Amino acid sequence: MNNFGRIFRLSIFGESHGSAVGVVIDGCPAGIPLEAEHFRDDFIRRKSGAPGTTPRKEGDIPEIISGVYNRFTTGTPVAILIGNKNVRSSDYEMVKDIPRPGHADFIALKKYGGFADLRGGGHFSGRLTTVLVAAGVIAKKICNPIQFNAKLIEAGGTRDIEKAIQKALNEKDSIGGIVECRISNVPVGIGEPFFDSIESMLSHIIFSIPAIKGIEFGSGFSSSKMKGSEHNDTLINTDGQTRTNHSGGINGGVSNGNELIFRVAVKPTSSIALEQKTINVKTGKMVGLKIEGRHDTCIALRIPVVVEAAAAIVLADFMLIEQKTKRINK
Amino acid sequence: MNNFGRIFRLSIFGESHGSAVGVVIDGCPAGIPLEAEHFRDDFIRRKSGAPGTTPRKEGDIPEIISGVYNRFTTGTPVAILIGNKNVRSSDYEMVKDIPRPGHADFIALKKYGGFADLRGGGHFSGRLTTVLVAAGVIAKKICNPIQFNAKLIEAGGTRDIEKAIQKALNEKDSIGGIVECRISNVPVGIGEPFFDSIESMLSHIIFSIPAIKGIEFGSGFSSSKMKGSEHNDTLINTDGQTRTNHSGGINGGVSNGNELIFRVAVKPTSSIALEQKTINVKTGKMVGLKIEGRHDTCIALRIPVVVEAAAAIVLADFMLIEQKTKRINK
Amino acid sequence: MNNFGRIFRLSIFGESHGSAVGVVIDGCPAGIPLEAEHFRDDFIRRKSGAPGTTPRKEGDIPEIISGVYNRFTTGTPVAILIGNKNVRSSDYEMVKDIPRPGHADFIALKKYGGFADLRGGGHFSGRLTTVLVAAGVIAKKICNPIQFNAKLIEAGGTRDIEKAIQKALNEKDSIGGIVECRISNVPVGIGEPFFDSIESMLSHIIFSIPAIKGIEFGSGFSSSKMKGSEHNDTLINTDGQTRTNHSGGINGGVSNGNELIFRVAVKPTSSIALEQKTINVKTGKMVGLKIEGRHDTCIALRIPVVVEAAAAIVLADFMLIEQKTKRINK
Amino acid sequence: MNNFGRIFRLSIFGESHGSAVGVVIDGCPAGIPLEAEHFRDDFIRRKSGAPGTTPRKEGDIPEIISGVYNRFTTGTPVAILIGNKNVRSSDYEMVKDIPRPGHADFIALKKYGGFADLRGGGHFSGRLTTVLVAAGVIAKKICNPIQFNAKLIEAGGTRDIEKAIQKALNEKDSIGGIVECRISNVPVGIGEPFFDSIESMLSHIIFSIPAIKGIEFGSGFSSSKMKGSEHNDTLINTDGQTRTNHSGGINGGVSNGNELIFRVAVKPTSSIALEQKTINVKTGKMVGLKIEGRHDTCIALRIPVVVEAAAAIVLADFMLIEQKTKRINK
Repeated sequence: MNNFGRIFRLSIFGESHGSAVGVVIDGCPAGIPLEAEHFRDDFIRRKSGAPGTTPRKEGDIPEIISGVYNRFTTGTPVAILIGNKNVRSSDYEMVKDIPRPGHADFIALKKYGGFADLRGGGHFSGRLTTVLVAAGVIAKKICNPIQFNAKLIEAGGTRDIEKAIQKALNEKDSIGGIVECRISNVPVGIGEPFFDSIESMLSHIIFSIPAIKGIEFGSGFSSSKMKGSEHNDTLINTDGQTRTNHSGGINGGVSNGNELIFRVAVKPTSSIALEQKTINVKTGKMVGLKIEGRHDTCIALRIPVVVEAAAAIVLADFMLIEQKTKRINK
Repeated sequence: MNNFGRIFRLSIFGESHGSAVGVVIDGCPAGIPLEAEHFRDDFIRRKSGAPGTTPRKEGDIPEIISGVYNRFTTGTPVAILIGNKNVRSSDYEMVKDIPRPGHADFIALKKYGGFADLRGGGHFSGRLTTVLVAAGVIAKKICNPIQFNAKLIEAGGTRDIEKAIQKALNEKDSIGGIVECRISNVPVGIGEPFFDSIESMLSHIIFSIPAIKGIEFGSGFSSSKMKGSEHNDTLINTDGQTRTNHSGGINGGVSNGNELIFRVAVKPTSSIALEQKTINVKTGKMVGLKIEGRHDTCIALRIPVVVEAAAAIVLADFMLIEQKTKRINK
Repeated sequence: MNNFGRIFRLSIFGESHGSAVGVVIDGCPAGIPLEAEHFRDDFIRRKSGAPGTTPRKEGDIPEIISGVYNRFTTGTPVAILIGNKNVRSSDYEMVKDIPRPGHADFIALKKYGGFADLRGGGHFSGRLTTVLVAAGVIAKKICNPIQFNAKLIEAGGTRDIEKAIQKALNEKDSIGGIVECRISNVPVGIGEPFFDSIESMLSHIIFSIPAIKGIEFGSGFSSSKMKGSEHNDTLINTDGQTRTNHSGGINGGVSNGNELIFRVAVKPTSSIALEQKTINVKTGKMVGLKIEGRHDTCIALRIPVVVEAAAAIVLADFMLIEQKTKRINK
Repeated sequence: MNNFGRIFRLSIFGESHGSAVGVVIDGCPAGIPLEAEHFRDDFIRRKSGAPGTTPRKEGDIPEIISGVYNRFTTGTPVAILIGNKNVRSSDYEMVKDIPRPGHADFIALKKYGGFADLRGGGHFSGRLTTVLVAAGVIAKKICNPIQFNAKLIEAGGTRDIEKAIQKALNEKDSIGGIVECRISNVPVGIGEPFFDSIESMLSHIIFSIPAIKGIEFGSGFSSSKMKGSEHNDTLINTDGQTRTNHSGGINGGVSNGNELIFRVAVKPTSSIALEQKTINVKTGKMVGLKIEGRHDTCIALRIPVVVEAAAAIVLADFMLIEQKTKRINK
């Protein structure tokens, strides 16, 4: 459901056009410095405003409701609320009859039997990723000195991203992209064999981000075209460093001391200004649909900081889980 | 850890060269017909023997320890044991000092502080996938009439799979491949928004299968190169059928009534007969390593039935979870 | 941690003197009517005001943040916030050095290394039970037509409860009590064998309520003094009705069709106006402590509605889990 | 369901008259010495044989299937199987029509729709407690130097236990009893506020033991008759030691450095040789039932070692969870 993690544990809630979205983080250790302004940098990175992003101004200021006292975490659950502003619900009334292509409107109607809040995508909205970013800010502190670095490396099939976006803007269309994330300073031995492999946990949370349709670790899909003699990474010292990093820093689901590397495929934004065909589920007739209002031309522009946050949430949990084993081994 | 699922819940255990591997399945409803011979077909599909697979004969017969009475499940936990036979542990003594490239030997030594059972990969072995196949047989019964169909669509970078394998055999090397899974008859509305999206849960379990390095849903990485006007699938009737299926049958993490489609990238088998370089962790010196014994030239050949099983385990859990909502809605 | 439940799943947060306490409820089915005023009756029952309760006026109005649209649940997480008012934090500054007897001050200091928010008991406060009551209101709707009825049957060792309270008020002391809960219309077959027995799940949540020190089902501790021939309940019809109900409506951890009955022991309120001895943890010297301010003379007076809520939360989860099995059996 | 624990995590399975009962323990740290003979002492304590216990000879030898190599745990799941011997299934054929009073026969029939394995109580049998004892042996090693000491302090309402049992044997009846458990050397700060309080987790697992009908911590039900001035324990040093221990070593759900004390009420064995009334669920007619075969006159005699094991399982999990917080605080 809407929970994730075993020790560092998130519960998320909220809808795009409700009063707020939010997250409760359980298992956050005591003694971590935390103030509202610590969220600022990552929130700015997620914000819209650049060419290719929606002009909806979110201007989010996370409000810490619990779990922090005198500017440090207390060890009890941290609840964070992010108020929704600048919402225009009237834009979304028609989607009950005329589901937007590529959106969750149709399945929400079927799944929740008409009780769904479809305004702005409701709970399915990318708006929910703000709470991941908020949780990620805390997770990064727990992970310190692990460093997270995600960026958009391709959009619309090209590395000339600005040009691709301008073209899409001109065409009133949208484009997708590829985000690469590199994580350094990861100690050897983080992650668990089998169900809780690093790949399992990272992909689990990454695919909760709307618009993600693929993920690959290390050489990923290219691996499938390699020979073993090419793909196997050669250990060059006893710390685990390897000459190449086709494995993306992971063997047997566990970190091997090299950089963690993965890439995610982001589909083009579903909302476009061009007219599209869809069905009116009441009448059963095909209709033309023009989605008015504010859209991201390339949602992938805003994804890197969300991917970093998601990765940090997973790594924070692994770090807290791993400590136990280390202690007992002594 | 080694648990997966919320209602239909697996706990797996065992090592490659221990006495057995096994699985406990909790939350399996009462009244499902189950006999040892029901496992046969899927076990044969996973078995070695074909060109490109290891000559280790597993000849597995799953033993049902609990949860079945008079040939039907009883509603209490189903435990299944699969004995390990034909093991040659002497082959694996050296790996404590000389970790094999691409394997989990190095991280196991680091993570478990020397207590790891490294014989045949221990708990990290592909041997563990037999228990997924066993659980998958039960899951498929729960999912009925949903149909699962996975196959190897590419090996060594080509669709001429036999030729690619013969070439690798000749070169004493190994190759990877791509497995595609198609799932039909999935009702609309299965899956949950956000953390428990279909993509999240499927990728979580799929990446627990050793050697998987990538996954993509629908058009996947190709989506990132498309325009929204191309990628958006057009609804053509009120049951949810769409003209194209770039989304892979999933919107907002939830099934939309079309075929579920995903592809996974399988890396080349790590064990190869060619000499490789690695490090002796005791002496810190680079050494040449020739891995003797039995290997799969293309482990991807044996993956399709495991992918089907993994997918069925996820879908069974979703089906059992979904029923609750439906009931209450009435 | 601060999560409870498997399908109907709570995450709670907040401190006594923070800005709010709250709960996120995941797994709440769509289509349940829910408005702020539905909380009123149970909140009034929990409120202080009667003789023997603290004069702190909580006047709580739960605010629904998410998961409700047009007065019905939407199927996505329901978040509820209850603002804290009328707090006097200055009263609690001294407890860092001088832990109050019977309170969590000492362990909070030790556990959280000085980062704990101790004001009003912080996260350990009975204030958190408001969120259980809120979740209980929803749970009761899911459980319908199951009926919950808890009441205080003994205080200060006597059934003349008013008199016992007046005596304690006069003595500036506090008293405990016993709350009995009866649950009717429970279908046969709710609950799970072993770890998720009804007794296991009810006791789990009941002991999260501050001040509870014992629980017994059916004849409970008296059972231990009976003979089998006395204690065994005789089935008198094929619906499961029994002549006596020593088992409290539960066999093998599962409901047997009779009334569920349990009793809980509530200790006397820890805060009393009388001077007590404790230690100054900074100086290591014994000191006299007089706790000023507002206390409940008999906190047990306010417990019944919390016990009902806790029980409803458990039963709602069992009802949702049980549906799945029934469906598959068909 | 049949899982318990968060880090040290049990999955149990098996039926009384199936081939075996067993447990998979996930999250068990590497490096713990473990051999089959380590189980012997606690298994002897659980065994029948003494006056007042069944003559069924279980003679159990736990078999370690996985997770142990060269006599140490490896860090991967430990699976333990305990074969069932000396079963006489013919004794139990009639219970499908004629449910035994006090047993789970009736609810099992209703819950599992006729698919239940009722032989010897099936999965509801006290036989399952062997696997708790096995897991407890490992848990005690993790908890070291914490000491667990449970004993039967009352049977049939008296402290002269031998006499009470002889009387019940003469009367062909059964009796219950009270088991007290004391746990010493528990560090301050173990346990979590609210849902995962020590009382919550201990009662959760304790009530999974068949025949337990009540639990109380510290002064328990007597607390409800005390005044606050009597009940509050006075801190006498900065380590947390208190003059009295009415709280049973727990404040706010967390250990306070004193002995943990709790008592459980065990009902009389349901199977007795005396004729009892029950209903034939096929005919709907009341019938007389004489349960032949082997029974425990006082099952409470065999419960103390199970209670210790259950407590150790909870404490082991808390110890492993607690380590994480400590580390981060540094």
